[in-house]
Amino acid sequence: MKKEELEKILKAVKNGEVEIDEAIDQIKMAPFRDLGFAKIDTQRELRQGIAEVIYGEGKNAKQIEDIVKEMIRNNQKTILITRLSKEKAEDISPDINLDYREDAQIGIVGEIPEPVKQGTIVIATGGTSDYRVAEEAAVTAEVLGNKVLRLYDVGVAGVHRLLANSQYLINANVVIAIAGMEGALASVVGGMVDCPVIAVPTSVGYGASFGGLSALLSMLNSCASGVSVVNIDNGFGAGYLASMINQRTSETV
Amino acid sequence: MKKEELEKILKAVKNGEVEIDEAIDQIKMAPFRDLGFAKIDTQRELRQGIAEVIYGEGKNAKQIEDIVKEMIRNNQKTILITRLSKEKAEDISPDINLDYREDAQIGIVGEIPEPVKQGTIVIATGGTSDYRVAEEAAVTAEVLGNKVLRLYDVGVAGVHRLLANSQYLINANVVIAIAGMEGALASVVGGMVDCPVIAVPTSVGYGASFGGLSALLSMLNSCASGVSVVNIDNGFGAGYLASMINQRTSETV
Amino acid sequence: MKKEELEKILKAVKNGEVEIDEAIDQIKMAPFRDLGFAKIDTQRELRQGIAEVIYGEGKNAKQIEDIVKEMIRNNQKTILITRLSKEKAEDISPDINLDYREDAQIGIVGEIPEPVKQGTIVIATGGTSDYRVAEEAAVTAEVLGNKVLRLYDVGVAGVHRLLANSQYLINANVVIAIAGMEGALASVVGGMVDCPVIAVPTSVGYGASFGGLSALLSMLNSCASGVSVVNIDNGFGAGYLASMINQRTSETV
Amino acid sequence: MKKEELEKILKAVKNGEVEIDEAIDQIKMAPFRDLGFAKIDTQRELRQGIAEVIYGEGKNAKQIEDIVKEMIRNNQKTILITRLSKEKAEDISPDINLDYREDAQIGIVGEIPEPVKQGTIVIATGGTSDYRVAEEAAVTAEVLGNKVLRLYDVGVAGVHRLLANSQYLINANVVIAIAGMEGALASVVGGMVDCPVIAVPTSVGYGASFGGLSALLSMLNSCASGVSVVNIDNGFGAGYLASMINQRTSETV
Amino acid sequence: MKKEELEKILKAVKNGEVEIDEAIDQIKMAPFRDLGFAKIDTQRELRQGIAEVIYGEGKNAKQIEDIVKEMIRNNQKTILITRLSKEKAEDISPDINLDYREDAQIGIVGEIPEPVKQGTIVIATGGTSDYRVAEEAAVTAEVLGNKVLRLYDVGVAGVHRLLANSQYLINANVVIAIAGMEGALASVVGGMVDCPVIAVPTSVGYGASFGGLSALLSMLNSCASGVSVVNIDNGFGAGYLASMINQRTSETV
Amino acid sequence: MKKEELEKILKAVKNGEVEIDEAIDQIKMAPFRDLGFAKIDTQRELRQGIAEVIYGEGKNAKQIEDIVKEMIRNNQKTILITRLSKEKAEDISPDINLDYREDAQIGIVGEIPEPVKQGTIVIATGGTSDYRVAEEAAVTAEVLGNKVLRLYDVGVAGVHRLLANSQYLINANVVIAIAGMEGALASVVGGMVDCPVIAVPTSVGYGASFGGLSALLSMLNSCASGVSVVNIDNGFGAGYLASMINQRTSETV
Amino acid sequence: MKKEELEKILKAVKNGEVEIDEAIDQIKMAPFRDLGFAKIDTQRELRQGIAEVIYGEGKNAKQIEDIVKEMIRNNQKTILITRLSKEKAEDISPDINLDYREDAQIGIVGEIPEPVKQGTIVIATGGTSDYRVAEEAAVTAEVLGNKVLRLYDVGVAGVHRLLANSQYLINANVVIAIAGMEGALASVVGGMVDCPVIAVPTSVGYGASFGGLSALLSMLNSCASGVSVVNIDNGFGAGYLASMINQRTSETV
Amino acid sequence: MKKEELEKILKAVKNGEVEIDEAIDQIKMAPFRDLGFAKIDTQRELRQGIAEVIYGEGKNAKQIEDIVKEMIRNNQKTILITRLSKEKAEDISPDINLDYREDAQIGIVGEIPEPVKQGTIVIATGGTSDYRVAEEAAVTAEVLGNKVLRLYDVGVAGVHRLLANSQYLINANVVIAIAGMEGALASVVGGMVDCPVIAVPTSVGYGASFGGLSALLSMLNSCASGVSVVNIDNGFGAGYLASMINQRTSETV
Repeated sequence: MKKEELEKILKAVKNGEVEIDEAIDQIKMAPFRDLGFAKIDTQRELRQGIAEVIYGEGKNAKQIEDIVKEMIRNNQKTILITRLSKEKAEDISPDINLDYREDAQIGIVGEIPEPVKQGTIVIATGGTSDYRVAEEAAVTAEVLGNKVLRLYDVGVAGVHRLLANSQYLINANVVIAIAGMEGALASVVGGMVDCPVIAVPTSVGYGASFGGLSALLSMLNSCASGVSVVNIDNGFGAGYLASMINQRTSETV
Repeated sequence: MKKEELEKILKAVKNGEVEIDEAIDQIKMAPFRDLGFAKIDTQRELRQGIAEVIYGEGKNAKQIEDIVKEMIRNNQKTILITRLSKEKAEDISPDINLDYREDAQIGIVGEIPEPVKQGTIVIATGGTSDYRVAEEAAVTAEVLGNKVLRLYDVGVAGVHRLLANSQYLINANVVIAIAGMEGALASVVGGMVDCPVIAVPTSVGYGASFGGLSALLSMLNSCASGVSVVNIDNGFGAGYLASMINQRTSETV
Repeated sequence: MKKEELEKILKAVKNGEVEIDEAIDQIKMAPFRDLGFAKIDTQRELRQGIAEVIYGEGKNAKQIEDIVKEMIRNNQKTILITRLSKEKAEDISPDINLDYREDAQIGIVGEIPEPVKQGTIVIATGGTSDYRVAEEAAVTAEVLGNKVLRLYDVGVAGVHRLLANSQYLINANVVIAIAGMEGALASVVGGMVDCPVIAVPTSVGYGASFGGLSALLSMLNSCASGVSVVNIDNGFGAGYLASMINQRTSETV
Repeated sequence: MKKEELEKILKAVKNGEVEIDEAIDQIKMAPFRDLGFAKIDTQRELRQGIAEVIYGEGKNAKQIEDIVKEMIRNNQKTILITRLSKEKAEDISPDINLDYREDAQIGIVGEIPEPVKQGTIVIATGGTSDYRVAEEAAVTAEVLGNKVLRLYDVGVAGVHRLLANSQYLINANVVIAIAGMEGALASVVGGMVDCPVIAVPTSVGYGASFGGLSALLSMLNSCASGVSVVNIDNGFGAGYLASMINQRTSETV
Repeated sequence: MKKEELEKILKAVKNGEVEIDEAIDQIKMAPFRDLGFAKIDTQRELRQGIAEVIYGEGKNAKQIEDIVKEMIRNNQKTILITRLSKEKAEDISPDINLDYREDAQIGIVGEIPEPVKQGTIVIATGGTSDYRVAEEAAVTAEVLGNKVLRLYDVGVAGVHRLLANSQYLINANVVIAIAGMEGALASVVGGMVDCPVIAVPTSVGYGASFGGLSALLSMLNSCASGVSVVNIDNGFGAGYLASMINQRTSETV
Repeated sequence: MKKEELEKILKAVKNGEVEIDEAIDQIKMAPFRDLGFAKIDTQRELRQGIAEVIYGEGKNAKQIEDIVKEMIRNNQKTILITRLSKEKAEDISPDINLDYREDAQIGIVGEIPEPVKQGTIVIATGGTSDYRVAEEAAVTAEVLGNKVLRLYDVGVAGVHRLLANSQYLINANVVIAIAGMEGALASVVGGMVDCPVIAVPTSVGYGASFGGLSALLSMLNSCASGVSVVNIDNGFGAGYLASMINQRTSETV
Repeated sequence: MKKEELEKILKAVKNGEVEIDEAIDQIKMAPFRDLGFAKIDTQRELRQGIAEVIYGEGKNAKQIEDIVKEMIRNNQKTILITRLSKEKAEDISPDINLDYREDAQIGIVGEIPEPVKQGTIVIATGGTSDYRVAEEAAVTAEVLGNKVLRLYDVGVAGVHRLLANSQYLINANVVIAIAGMEGALASVVGGMVDCPVIAVPTSVGYGASFGGLSALLSMLNSCASGVSVVNIDNGFGAGYLASMINQRTSETV
Repeated sequence: MKKEELEKILKAVKNGEVEIDEAIDQIKMAPFRDLGFAKIDTQRELRQGIAEVIYGEGKNAKQIEDIVKEMIRNNQKTILITRLSKEKAEDISPDINLDYREDAQIGIVGEIPEPVKQGTIVIATGGTSDYRVAEEAAVTAEVLGNKVLRLYDVGVAGVHRLLANSQYLINANVVIAIAGMEGALASVVGGMVDCPVIAVPTSVGYGASFGGLSALLSMLNSCASGVSVVNIDNGFGAGYLASMINQRTSETV
């Protein structure tokens, strides 16, 4: 129930146009979502011009198209379509001006906002095979308006590669540490920086990596403080959370 | 190698007091930690006056005492001793002015800093049994200088209790959602707020909760964005990370 | 052994047409199923006009056809074929008047009974991807003669959507709560209603959802009373059990 | 917000005693639980005279005493304290008239209501070791006002014991099937009856029973329709759900 | 080392044709398998005319052909090829007189021996989907010379079907109980018979059956005595072991 | 229903003393167990003079005493009490002539039958720590009337110890292979003998043995034919099954 | 930072061409990898003429080609490409002189060095299906310059095959024991030899082998001393480690 | 069979004192262990003066005493008793000159040999809680005659501590990397050194460390080459294997 509607009912009560009992019913029956969940309004204002997200998996090209068109009608400036395969992307009507990033399996409709001035999100990966998940995180963060620095293939089995880039890590506002196999990257990075580290285990590996379980447990048990973990291969979630932390910092300036 | 030492060597080289070969050896052999890891210095400055942490489990009262005394000698103003049982706390010498918080199983030595002005950390728990973990998180965050608001026993099986407190959640800067059993609190809270949610699964429950595994998996699979997870029962880790995010926001103002 | 047969033997004994020893053998050797398992008879009477179920998976079109034809010969009015793929459905002979519901992967032969007057089964799902399982439950319940109300995509990450529909939930006779990923829907719904909640975990999700394990454990650990759980993706089982509870209620009126 | 309060605000608006803006604030800020969650009121009416439940584990005798006394002050007629050890029960003040059932680890305060006329809940167990869980279910159901029939030690390894009692099972309104080890009882009973079967896996067993996991998986995979499962050792949950189904049936008469 | 060879060496020693040191070397260096492992000889005698087994999986048609031809050259009367797909069977040269049993995925070359007089192996399955594994067991046992009785689709959810066949079970010499999902068949059968029951969990099922894990754990926890378990889907292993027990019984007559 | 009772009813029908309808009721209502389950009678005859088993765990000394006394009244000659701790054994009244075997945690009341002439059960263990489980198996088999040969501590890490005893293994009628840790003993023994091998995984070990899981999986995956598995630490089950196979062989002679 | 560069800076300091402060900056900012990680240099010298490794999985033919060409330009004498499928191998340009070993799924470019004189690596496998993993280990070890002896198909279910080859095992410098299913080979071999045994579990098997978990746990729990384990199917890792141990031994001569 | 015995038999054959048939029997019946398993003899020679090991867990003080005394009678110079608790150690008779190392839970009887000249075993641990396991490894290696260097508490969350000690690691002949929680130490160390790394996961940690599973999986998935893994907490196994590699290197000099 929007403020205006509640106002209208109260005015009608005041003016005697509506009985009190009837007013009670109207107020009580209003769907809760209309009762002014601060969040929803806040979010709308807040997201003015910011990306809306469509989870592409399990939707076909036509369904995605329809949602996108409706969003455009609602003046959504930027739309992010995650887990969008190349095949599906190619099936989407050329009417929609789709900027497809194959590496990230992400489609973008509309303009990418200027990144906020302060704060860099550093995305570090253990190996080259973590590339897709890393790009999902990176493109998500960029489309949400953040400066992103990619430090790929700096896995702990060659810790000097990581150290050679320590200045970038130390200056980060948030670090996303992405690794499969033993997932040790999160701990080592967590020990090097003072900012929050979002750890993303990946399903990269074989045998006893058990589809990412090894990296997941490893990251949850990180002995470094400041590390938290998202789901296996959840690049989007990490990018979104990193943006939330990074922008919060910047907004308050 | 501190700057002064390197300077000394270089001066000696300049003055011809030391041969170049010898200088090379001295520089190369210097332990890496001395080569100016920005982080370490930064940390020291940054932590000036902030709590140092001792993990109490597996150390006896005497060992803890010794570490505390050494820290005090080093002018550490605040010391946090986590996972400290009541028995052990009572065995610590009265010489040390220990402020023991039994609920949190935390001992504090020294003064607790004034909380930063901006930003509240809200700690929500699913049930009364999550109390110990919640207090560990709360006291940690407080000792690190944060304003903390406790919303205990607002589990999802009575979602109205949670909603009745939605204004507190919506105004939080960081939320720590602590729950055992099905761990659904993290998702529901994650859907209500726009700030980062740190989820802490607890080992509360029986049977198919498998020591916290149920809540852990549940939280990792949260369908709400902005949620990340720390280890089972890791109240300290959540409090520390929340403080890191909260203070970063505040510092940049 | 039907009553008539036993009667016949006893009469023959009475009339001296059959020796006692022979009668003993006849009675003892009668297959147990004929010895009057109340259930079987009851069931037959009870199911007069109610659907018989064929599990389609692992049977080919021809086998299904044969079973259906035999059932029709036995005057079965309604037949439900579950887990029937579109391909298989298309291969079934047009002789059979198949009403195929692709969303539910269910084929129906014969008439769908009028729903019982009292009692609604509400089917709530966490997300759009739980659609197939939900439809399996819904169509099963409908074909068994129940009024069904679908509340899809009311997952807990947007708890207001759920609350906006609370009147439907509160008035339900049975609720089926279907969710993948963190499966929190069951707990939240369980806390809102006073009727039995049948929780169905789905294999929707990735990474640490481990094929539905996360939702399964979550639902088993529900802190709300009145919640019980069926197998992962078992929409049919939930629909059948819901019907059993709903009709029992109605029957006794 | 109770109806009366909302009425009061509206009247004040009507009378011009309160400004519309102020009224909007008052309505919006009212805790959600007061906005007329049908359930809560319903529950209160519904539970008039019915047991309130206290989960005894993790609370000490004093805490339990306090809660009980407060409930009595609120005119609660029957109070059920689950997971209450004998030691704790003995520590509870004799002021409270505690009816302690050691087998069920349940304490009862107040009167046990007359069971509803129609409908029996049959509680079947696989072995003698499932006794405690079974009694927890049985006493819970009895205190909630149900007729309960105990069929203990009718495990499937001696299927004739089960069959010898088939008439009781067939006439049940709800069956609770409790078993550890291989948990097969649920399936066999599920195949014998037409009413809902609530399966309770127990942690009874050793080795590959893995604390009840074996029985749990077994019951979830039951090939009989109408079976659903609650958490390992959750006798209370089963008793509560069975009562819910049984009373619903009876109430509607 | 065959007896003749050792004899020859000893004779040579006796005759002085070979030095003692040289004899020691010859005896010591003889491969262990030649040192008269009773088993090997026994086996050969014992298996005179009995089937030799080839595990078909992971071998191509050509490789299988070669092994079969070599076996035939060695006068092997009966050859059993397990896990042989239809495609592979069709690729095997028509030179080889292959009796292919598609249901069992078994190919037979040579004559099937007359079954031993005494003792029947009863093979009971829970459902129709366990058919392939059951046939693998059945054909294996038949080719090894046993009388086999098939009792398919007698799962515990309709325990009367099982009871209706109890005379066959009671008269069995060995029972193989094959079931997926909850695997309860083994326990129920184990409680009905006095002979050894070999339980075979199958990977039939979905969701929480976890590829046969549910049935496996269930069978290992059987509360009936006399039940032991082989690997998931291991029909051959069960058939082979059943034959071993059955023939041992018969042989000793 | 015993034959005599049925006969009596039929005679009464014949004589016109009982109406047919009444007879039908009497026959139908007779508990199933009385309807001539061949097994039960067979068992009774068969077990004449053979041990009856009491599972001691979870029963106190008094309860065990009562059961034993009742059994003695029923002329049971031999009684086996498994999982009986020393403390409990000492608490049993001296009235009962208890032969307590501490190593096996078994109590015996009554006489141990002469072992059957033919067939030896060989019990092999991997290490000295498997002793308790092995003795449980051994004493069970002995009390059931079998000749038992103990080959303890012949684990595969010293395969020569096993080979040094190969003649005993080869001459066994049944082998029970008991091992914790990697459980390889079952496979090696299975490859050496032609008789059934019953594998018993034990919970001996630490770390990645996960309470016997390692040995359990190892034994289920045995590449040797003729091996089947019982539950972790289930010495009794193995001894009972071995006796069943051994005696079956001997009986048929 | 290479020695020459540091030397140059120090000379410049000595000559007064560079200020001390500037020199400090230059030294501190030098990427850590240049600061003389002994290992890197050592490795380079050490690997002069030794194989560089490319992990083929997840790279396409073109990418592999490019890396190989760059390595050749850098005078790399031997290049090992692991996990290279036949299809990919065939797509690699004929410009590159690729020696493809299909069994090992390894491609070799350049010359294979002469094996070191002393020390043999024995590779033993449990069954024929472990062939691919074994060849990966064998070819890796050979290309790294080691003498390799293959003892395939010597699984423990026929322990005489293993014993017949004991002289080869006893004379080995390192043994790689490769087995799927129950993985017992590692323990038996570990008990026969005095040299390090590297155990490789393989994913060969079905059912309860759970993709190699069974063999993995079995090997980790080996009761033989001197056994360590690498990841499931990690033939390369075992070959590399074996070479490291073998060459270390030889080098020190 | 010792060479002398075989010689004696052959001489007797030569001299006609023994018939050939009888000689065949004597040779064949000789326990296999006597047939000259090279290993056994080798071992004896090799171990001349080297420690024999007793696994203390599960043996009481008296049993350990007896074994030790027997070993001393057999001129064993050094005896290592692992997993020996302080209580048990104190119960061992003072007759035995026991050197008890509480940290390692190891008792030593006899002299500790001089370490071999070449080659150091470096033992690195992630945290202070891994101390007991590390000492078990260290003392084992020392008693077996190796030079050991302890680098404790160099976990990856403070990677500079590790790097500051890189020269020790680089110069090691074997490294034992011991860590609980996320177990990342093995990978980081494995990337720094060229020698074999033996990884020991420890059960240190809580929650999702699942008793060492997290560290175990992490280490098995190490992306560094040259790393292999032993069982959780198996310090002895690591020390023994490290000694085996280290001494092999040294011996061949």
